[in-house]
Amino acid sequence: MIKVGIIGATGYVGQQLVGLLIRHKECEIKFISSNTYKGEPFSNVYGQYRDIFQMECIDTGKVSEHLSEVDLVFIALPHGLAFETAKLCKELNVRVIDMGADFRLKDVDAYKEWYKLDHGAKDLNQEAVYGLPEVYSKEIKDAFLIGNPGCYPTASILGLMPLLKTDFIDKQSIIIDAKSGVSGAGRSTKIDNLFTEVNESLKAYGVATHRHTPEIEQELSNASNEKITLSFTPHLVPMNKGILATSYVNLKEFVTQKELYDLYKEEYKDAPFVRVIDDLPQTRWVRGSNFCDIGIRVDERTNRIIVISAIDNMIKGAAGQGIQNMNIMFGIDERTGLDMLPMLP
Amino acid sequence: MIKVGIIGATGYVGQQLVGLLIRHKECEIKFISSNTYKGEPFSNVYGQYRDIFQMECIDTGKVSEHLSEVDLVFIALPHGLAFETAKLCKELNVRVIDMGADFRLKDVDAYKEWYKLDHGAKDLNQEAVYGLPEVYSKEIKDAFLIGNPGCYPTASILGLMPLLKTDFIDKQSIIIDAKSGVSGAGRSTKIDNLFTEVNESLKAYGVATHRHTPEIEQELSNASNEKITLSFTPHLVPMNKGILATSYVNLKEFVTQKELYDLYKEEYKDAPFVRVIDDLPQTRWVRGSNFCDIGIRVDERTNRIIVISAIDNMIKGAAGQGIQNMNIMFGIDERTGLDMLPMLP
Amino acid sequence: MIKVGIIGATGYVGQQLVGLLIRHKECEIKFISSNTYKGEPFSNVYGQYRDIFQMECIDTGKVSEHLSEVDLVFIALPHGLAFETAKLCKELNVRVIDMGADFRLKDVDAYKEWYKLDHGAKDLNQEAVYGLPEVYSKEIKDAFLIGNPGCYPTASILGLMPLLKTDFIDKQSIIIDAKSGVSGAGRSTKIDNLFTEVNESLKAYGVATHRHTPEIEQELSNASNEKITLSFTPHLVPMNKGILATSYVNLKEFVTQKELYDLYKEEYKDAPFVRVIDDLPQTRWVRGSNFCDIGIRVDERTNRIIVISAIDNMIKGAAGQGIQNMNIMFGIDERTGLDMLPMLP
Amino acid sequence: MIKVGIIGATGYVGQQLVGLLIRHKECEIKFISSNTYKGEPFSNVYGQYRDIFQMECIDTGKVSEHLSEVDLVFIALPHGLAFETAKLCKELNVRVIDMGADFRLKDVDAYKEWYKLDHGAKDLNQEAVYGLPEVYSKEIKDAFLIGNPGCYPTASILGLMPLLKTDFIDKQSIIIDAKSGVSGAGRSTKIDNLFTEVNESLKAYGVATHRHTPEIEQELSNASNEKITLSFTPHLVPMNKGILATSYVNLKEFVTQKELYDLYKEEYKDAPFVRVIDDLPQTRWVRGSNFCDIGIRVDERTNRIIVISAIDNMIKGAAGQGIQNMNIMFGIDERTGLDMLPMLP
Repeated sequence: MIKVGIIGATGYVGQQLVGLLIRHKECEIKFISSNTYKGEPFSNVYGQYRDIFQMECIDTGKVSEHLSEVDLVFIALPHGLAFETAKLCKELNVRVIDMGADFRLKDVDAYKEWYKLDHGAKDLNQEAVYGLPEVYSKEIKDAFLIGNPGCYPTASILGLMPLLKTDFIDKQSIIIDAKSGVSGAGRSTKIDNLFTEVNESLKAYGVATHRHTPEIEQELSNASNEKITLSFTPHLVPMNKGILATSYVNLKEFVTQKELYDLYKEEYKDAPFVRVIDDLPQTRWVRGSNFCDIGIRVDERTNRIIVISAIDNMIKGAAGQGIQNMNIMFGIDERTGLDMLPMLP
Repeated sequence: MIKVGIIGATGYVGQQLVGLLIRHKECEIKFISSNTYKGEPFSNVYGQYRDIFQMECIDTGKVSEHLSEVDLVFIALPHGLAFETAKLCKELNVRVIDMGADFRLKDVDAYKEWYKLDHGAKDLNQEAVYGLPEVYSKEIKDAFLIGNPGCYPTASILGLMPLLKTDFIDKQSIIIDAKSGVSGAGRSTKIDNLFTEVNESLKAYGVATHRHTPEIEQELSNASNEKITLSFTPHLVPMNKGILATSYVNLKEFVTQKELYDLYKEEYKDAPFVRVIDDLPQTRWVRGSNFCDIGIRVDERTNRIIVISAIDNMIKGAAGQGIQNMNIMFGIDERTGLDMLPMLP
Repeated sequence: MIKVGIIGATGYVGQQLVGLLIRHKECEIKFISSNTYKGEPFSNVYGQYRDIFQMECIDTGKVSEHLSEVDLVFIALPHGLAFETAKLCKELNVRVIDMGADFRLKDVDAYKEWYKLDHGAKDLNQEAVYGLPEVYSKEIKDAFLIGNPGCYPTASILGLMPLLKTDFIDKQSIIIDAKSGVSGAGRSTKIDNLFTEVNESLKAYGVATHRHTPEIEQELSNASNEKITLSFTPHLVPMNKGILATSYVNLKEFVTQKELYDLYKEEYKDAPFVRVIDDLPQTRWVRGSNFCDIGIRVDERTNRIIVISAIDNMIKGAAGQGIQNMNIMFGIDERTGLDMLPMLP
Repeated sequence: MIKVGIIGATGYVGQQLVGLLIRHKECEIKFISSNTYKGEPFSNVYGQYRDIFQMECIDTGKVSEHLSEVDLVFIALPHGLAFETAKLCKELNVRVIDMGADFRLKDVDAYKEWYKLDHGAKDLNQEAVYGLPEVYSKEIKDAFLIGNPGCYPTASILGLMPLLKTDFIDKQSIIIDAKSGVSGAGRSTKIDNLFTEVNESLKAYGVATHRHTPEIEQELSNASNEKITLSFTPHLVPMNKGILATSYVNLKEFVTQKELYDLYKEEYKDAPFVRVIDDLPQTRWVRGSNFCDIGIRVDERTNRIIVISAIDNMIKGAAGQGIQNMNIMFGIDERTGLDMLPMLP
């Protein structure tokens, strides 16, 4: 049994980790922590868990006292708050999956630029592995520290990565127009996230400034051996869950849709959670599951490729991917505990 | 392995059966049928099932050719269409769980009155067991034919049944004000079910005439040894799934909330899917799961009890309950294949 | 021109008053106030009003300096905060419509009991008129101070009042099961009101304890010359706007649906905003308008009447009714500025 | 008084025309027609209109008998059905605003290519004016026949047109990623439009093949004196109304955001319904109104302009624009009957 702790268990991502891990057959939750709800049973915060999981939240400030009980911690805190815990885990030889943004960017200057914060664990950051199993499976296996990818980057990178390895696209022409359900905004009490402010409306936000941009650029640059600069525009959609990323890439040479489909199928032939499909993806087709669905279209009129990728932002975009990483780190089948079917209706 | 067939697999209830049964460890789907989509792979109809379940739908009209391959059939068809198949199954010694309304009412005259249709299998109807495991567990075990309860009746009966066995309520004072998500209306193409007609609105329907009324009355009468007549009013709520039933009962003698809570706890102490809770139930706390959550309030000002019960109409209100019945019929743990957690957000 | 000020203009009710009054041909807004947004132009708070209404919010704490500029103030503040302003207005001879709960209950002890607060203006409270134009039109005309009805009471009272004047119902049997969109919860930042907490869910709240209960009882008692005690249960529905109240009343003598329909038609024949309809009301049929739609059903099986009434909680349930009151107070057609059609889809 | 008829009054666009025109002070509806609901009062189809507008729908097939009663007809029918009526109107000297697609494209070959149908009124098509008042105000004034713009084209063209008149952009680099509420799909009974299929999901559709593409290209080509080819991708969003178009354009020379803002302000200084704003538009800010809100961002990192434009697809994207055209055609203030405020919440 893998013994784990979850730091920040009462946010949406932390909660999703709890939900998946209590059904995971080779994993045991040893502690969960919360700032806001310390001392309360988990099911007080989330009524769904009544009779299922009543573990009491420990104080996030006192997690250090419990680290020695576990093999792995998930840190599900706002950015900037994972540095010290990660250092402590290093000392204690406890592996770490950081669900936040603190260990995703290799370039600590980029971290400072986009997050307006000095990176607080530069040495450790060198060791961190970007936790996208479809790319870094081998490195994840032996990693001490995983930077679990952001939700938008997961959908965007999986959708575009196969193209970046080719020669037939204009690699500087990438535009990603992404749309997310509201859970991506977390469980914070801002007027902007009230039902009455979000429902029956649609908006873009963070245009040209969203912090997931350098993360996507980093990974697509790695895939292409060329520094990629791209446009990324997120939108807020009145639904609970789901991300759809619509990406546009200019072609330098003509390719057919069939050729692209085959390229993607080949790229992801061993990836159990990526489904390359004929149809155009819909977020409901992946809701509640760890799948990423990808559809590709060639527009001959404009000489562009349009790639559409869909994930559940809470699962493949966060907790599901974290568990997939954990599975790989501990040498068990990466699908363990992740066989949820998409929920419908 | 229990070998099953699903007749009418491409409606919402049929689909939910498929989704649950392909994850059920002691069950094997031998055939699925559809009128509309015969000859098509299931994942063509529901894109969610790509790479997961591509079984081809056989023609519902030709199901008889396949009955001998299975131990049990689920019939998920509109009312009036289960009679002949059930008779055939009787001959072939194939057990039947009818998800529709054809075998729920003991009184075939009531069937005719409310469904405007002569009952087409009166003899068989005598044998049918009402498939509410919290009440008829023993009878279900040996049943050849199960009438799987309606969604509203499941929430209503579980919420009220413990009271009907007592002497302190006015048994003719029951009012059930129920609210359902839109999946209860099925997958039929009516203008009334369009997104733009349902969203951002709320309405009552079938006031004083809804067909689930006699079903609730039958079961509450059974529980109380007195013929119960009650008011039942359903409402359509702009959400995909979930039923909340708010029931009102007049007290003849005073009881405390604590006494009622204890009564309910005792009643359901062996029922793994009924959660008697302190709080007021919310449909999201049971969404995607087989739970029925029940909360009780005594209003001393008005001398009334208010009982609130919540289910996922597609799971405990349909497919989940059907599988619970199947498990009992075949002597396995009734929870098998039904350990889904409520989904959030 | 009626000169008005709006205190608390940046809440949802205040905002709705602004929206309706800037299109009202015989009214001029002289000031708007806000605690949170003092000094900011209104269109900064509500982007909808760009290029339309940029008046700067004055500090609610400094409203007294501006009262002499107006004929009437609307107070749209949480309960308990209208007492002092109302007293000051009395001195200055400025008429008042309180959108909150401070002047709705005639019985100041009931106020204390339900609102947990001593009434701070008991003398003035004696003068206050309950601002339901369909009942108190004459008193409203000459009133100095109006207690504008709550949203649930408006729907409930209009739906039940005609019955209370008759002899054929059991007046102590009333049960009101009401459902509201989320705007009724106001614009406060509570986790419970986040999109992700409300969407795709349904719950009852305030069971047997909601503060609108004594208000409904007061008015139905007045209509019937008998002290009425009733059950009132509110529910939260995932939609922005709209209230549907489903009310149950036991019959003492039989009446037909036609007789009831005629009774209601007669009762409301001069009420321009009440529509007695054959069909069952839907909240979308009144959304954005000042209408209250009422449908009635007699259930002969149970000997009960079911009355369903629907309003837009922000319009007839708040701002629209306030303006209807203002119109009557100033001797102009009560429909002035209130001819909005229901919005669809 | 302008006397008008509405052909196809019971679709969503026709209905919206009715709703706006019955409040229009200089217009009188002489007839409304419907195929599906002929002989029925309008308020039977749309319960909102009870006590407001009960005019009986005439048979759309018999409209010709009534054309002589009107000065103008709105044709709100599916494409391909406006040709014959338009010809007849020409003979009878009745002006026409076609809400559909039959008279939007100047190039009848393009019509055939995209709509898979021979154009049935090629001569008349030469006379038709594209009814975008912000561009063709002068031509609209004298037009006999207006092709009222599509919803996506209205948002897209208004958002991009000012840029097309400049020299600093790469005019062949345009990508429009557009998102629409479900009312854009009309009131047809397809499974894809059911609440349970649309809610809590998001998808792209018609990728590289949507029929609004040539319409946008036509108008942007006109603005730039250069044949424009662009990418247009529509998405379906779970909300009733609203379109948000996010457009991407590459810069050839650097410009500042301030310069662009000023350019847009100048371009639309006389357009009463276009609001160039500092913020990023949200569809709720224009919901229920005839406004088009436009926000512009320069992304210096990628050397791109991002333009975001928002409309209510039923108002500025259809009926409101049609009435704006009517006003101009008949020489009255173009704002007449269109002063609806955006509705909130």
